Amino acid sequence: MMAPDYGRTFGLWRSGAAEEWTDYTRHAFVEGLCDGTLPRAAFLHYLVQDYVFLVHFARAWSLAVIKSETLEEMRVCAGTVDALVNHEMSLHVQTCAAAGIDEQTLFSAPEAVENLAYTRYVMDAGMQGDFIDLMAALAPCVMGYGEIGLRLAQSRTHDTPYGDWIGTYAAADYQQVCTTVGAMIDTAVDRRIGDLATSPRRQAIQDRFTKATALEVGFWQMGLTPQ
Amino acid sequence: MMAPDYGRTFGLWRSGAAEEWTDYTRHAFVEGLCDGTLPRAAFLHYLVQDYVFLVHFARAWSLAVIKSETLEEMRVCAGTVDALVNHEMSLHVQTCAAAGIDEQTLFSAPEAVENLAYTRYVMDAGMQGDFIDLMAALAPCVMGYGEIGLRLAQSRTHDTPYGDWIGTYAAADYQQVCTTVGAMIDTAVDRRIGDLATSPRRQAIQDRFTKATALEVGFWQMGLTPQ
Amino acid sequence: MMAPDYGRTFGLWRSGAAEEWTDYTRHAFVEGLCDGTLPRAAFLHYLVQDYVFLVHFARAWSLAVIKSETLEEMRVCAGTVDALVNHEMSLHVQTCAAAGIDEQTLFSAPEAVENLAYTRYVMDAGMQGDFIDLMAALAPCVMGYGEIGLRLAQSRTHDTPYGDWIGTYAAADYQQVCTTVGAMIDTAVDRRIGDLATSPRRQAIQDRFTKATALEVGFWQMGLTPQ
Amino acid sequence: MMAPDYGRTFGLWRSGAAEEWTDYTRHAFVEGLCDGTLPRAAFLHYLVQDYVFLVHFARAWSLAVIKSETLEEMRVCAGTVDALVNHEMSLHVQTCAAAGIDEQTLFSAPEAVENLAYTRYVMDAGMQGDFIDLMAALAPCVMGYGEIGLRLAQSRTHDTPYGDWIGTYAAADYQQVCTTVGAMIDTAVDRRIGDLATSPRRQAIQDRFTKATALEVGFWQMGLTPQ
Repeated sequence: MMAPDYGRTFGLWRSGAAEEWTDYTRHAFVEGLCDGTLPRAAFLHYLVQDYVFLVHFARAWSLAVIKSETLEEMRVCAGTVDALVNHEMSLHVQTCAAAGIDEQTLFSAPEAVENLAYTRYVMDAGMQGDFIDLMAALAPCVMGYGEIGLRLAQSRTHDTPYGDWIGTYAAADYQQVCTTVGAMIDTAVDRRIGDLATSPRRQAIQDRFTKATALEVGFWQMGLTPQ
Repeated sequence: MMAPDYGRTFGLWRSGAAEEWTDYTRHAFVEGLCDGTLPRAAFLHYLVQDYVFLVHFARAWSLAVIKSETLEEMRVCAGTVDALVNHEMSLHVQTCAAAGIDEQTLFSAPEAVENLAYTRYVMDAGMQGDFIDLMAALAPCVMGYGEIGLRLAQSRTHDTPYGDWIGTYAAADYQQVCTTVGAMIDTAVDRRIGDLATSPRRQAIQDRFTKATALEVGFWQMGLTPQ
Repeated sequence: MMAPDYGRTFGLWRSGAAEEWTDYTRHAFVEGLCDGTLPRAAFLHYLVQDYVFLVHFARAWSLAVIKSETLEEMRVCAGTVDALVNHEMSLHVQTCAAAGIDEQTLFSAPEAVENLAYTRYVMDAGMQGDFIDLMAALAPCVMGYGEIGLRLAQSRTHDTPYGDWIGTYAAADYQQVCTTVGAMIDTAVDRRIGDLATSPRRQAIQDRFTKATALEVGFWQMGLTPQ
Repeated sequence: MMAPDYGRTFGLWRSGAAEEWTDYTRHAFVEGLCDGTLPRAAFLHYLVQDYVFLVHFARAWSLAVIKSETLEEMRVCAGTVDALVNHEMSLHVQTCAAAGIDEQTLFSAPEAVENLAYTRYVMDAGMQGDFIDLMAALAPCVMGYGEIGLRLAQSRTHDTPYGDWIGTYAAADYQQVCTTVGAMIDTAVDRRIGDLATSPRRQAIQDRFTKATALEVGFWQMGLTPQ
């Protein structure tokens, strides 16, 4: 299976972090979702942390609204915040509710250090740099989940209990988010950098993407070891 | 006519800036909208600047998402960003389109100094302080337009050409925004300050509200003098 | 007299805003400092507002520390904050003290709208963009005062009462600040952009510089009309 | 030995995080500095990470300049940035240079996840909240090192090779920093909160301090395990 096409810039970033990208998208946690061997406790532990992650991810996309310089950038980023806060979290809320964990508990769950490191790194990438620095730190989560979702939808065993999770990210509307964000990033790079491959910013921006990808690896690893 | 009830904290802030509030809500520009004597050129000049204002107002509400500490705060603020970017600006876009001004022209219109001073003051109030500092700087616009809309809907002459503008802010859904934001502010104050009237922060927060109200007066004044 | 050389990037920005730069550096307020015809009340009004300006200018240079990506950038920016807070303000404090205005009064002086617009625009340029966006908004004040100081030191009449002001900005240590900041900006541009003249960011960054220069014109104008 | 007095607010915060505070100030890493049993490799690993920590700590104190509301707050915070960037890092630079590690290597050292989590948490505490939120996240490092330095200066064995480290934090000028920052925090609390013990913000602010203290524990732990 070929990787989905989420745009020119994303393709460049993904190849520039090849090893970390494989560690992330082929992590044991992901394979456990695919074949159903992931223990339920690990999944719930992950889901609680991922809810808190999404809270801060929505804050980081709000920072992207602040850093937008075109109407199109504002619309995509504001729409993403709304989607995160009012829609994407609902899978977490419903699944956790079924396990007896209510949303206020989710919202105030103590953050694992891997979670804290990742989300605050993304926020600070936006504070320190510009819109592109922030996008490079946001992209691994958005697009990686899209890529994982698609692959698992095609290769999952029939009896994995994690079909809802897989379906959420394989779904056409989530794939559309990846495509829209990818196209917006391409336009943003055209506008601010031009040819990224030959820009003096190339390495610094790649480092943002690679770092955020490595932090995704840490997040799955944290998921495997519920406390 | 009594002022509408947008919450306890707003009531306190409004009385603490009585003179500026009257200058703002009873400004000659407002009276001209009410009786239809406002020149069309002034209205269009205002509308173009107000569009740019809303761009930065949406950025400031995005900063409020970043500064939120509860799920409810995040939802109200994210919903407001979405409403601003995807809905409230549409009156501006339609009216300006009818006058031959397209949305890209609106987005990149040169900002009047009164506009710049106001929007960046609000942004910086959020950077310097906490969620309450930011709300005190955001409230005059949100609630003032609600109060003006309601009053003008009751007292306007039948032949004012500005009925659509008045109707937008007198409408039930805009009034609901004011009520929801006002209630959220009350809860935010309970959570962070307690009794605002006796808090050592009382004056500093009032100063934010009063300053933003005075900047609204400057904004109307700018509207009266199209360049 | 030739303009002083504060670096390659500054030279490009200065020529890109030729008209605004002349309006700023040859403003009637400046000529009044030079030949001594500026009324004392105007100078004091300006000095009080400039003190408040420097408070926010120090905050903007602190934002530059946050946005720095090299040790050298951090050192120059941190040193500038320290110089502003602990040294440059002292001329203001001493001159105002002699006129019976103490430092707490200066710190809490009500800001003129031209002052508010300028300082908060600079802060927000840093929030919205990267280190270069912020530098483009900071440069007109730093370098413009250097250029004005040098020119006035050579052409001032002997009996202007504003010799101390002129001397502050013509002095070798202030000129060194301009040279150091200019060299740091050149290196920062090499690192992030490469050839600025052909970069797609060229116009957007020029707009920051030109806007800040225009806001300097507004600041002098405000100084001429004490309330 | 009694704990040093770094102010009323710090005392309240310290007692509110009693367990974490002991884990931090009596950590095995600290005891190893005291009796000299800490392996050199662990110390150097820690020192490299601590250098990177100080880079971001200086950024966080710069954010404190931005969030200051009084002249005194600005002066203390700007002075701290200058002290960090131009002085405190010199112990690290000299010790590391003697071990063959130059400053550019220090500046660009890959950050351990414990380091990343801590520094970015502090930055974001300032973005999300106000000056007090930021101070509560900054205080454990500033004051904890002061308390550890003092205790170790009194109880260290004569032949620990870490006498320079201990001396740096036990020295009168570092103790003065702790006292000055503690007094500034007390004044900042008076100005913004009043009686912290009965404020509705009490718990949220304590949580900031306790979290940052727990992240200090993680930092020592990271130091013990060089990779």
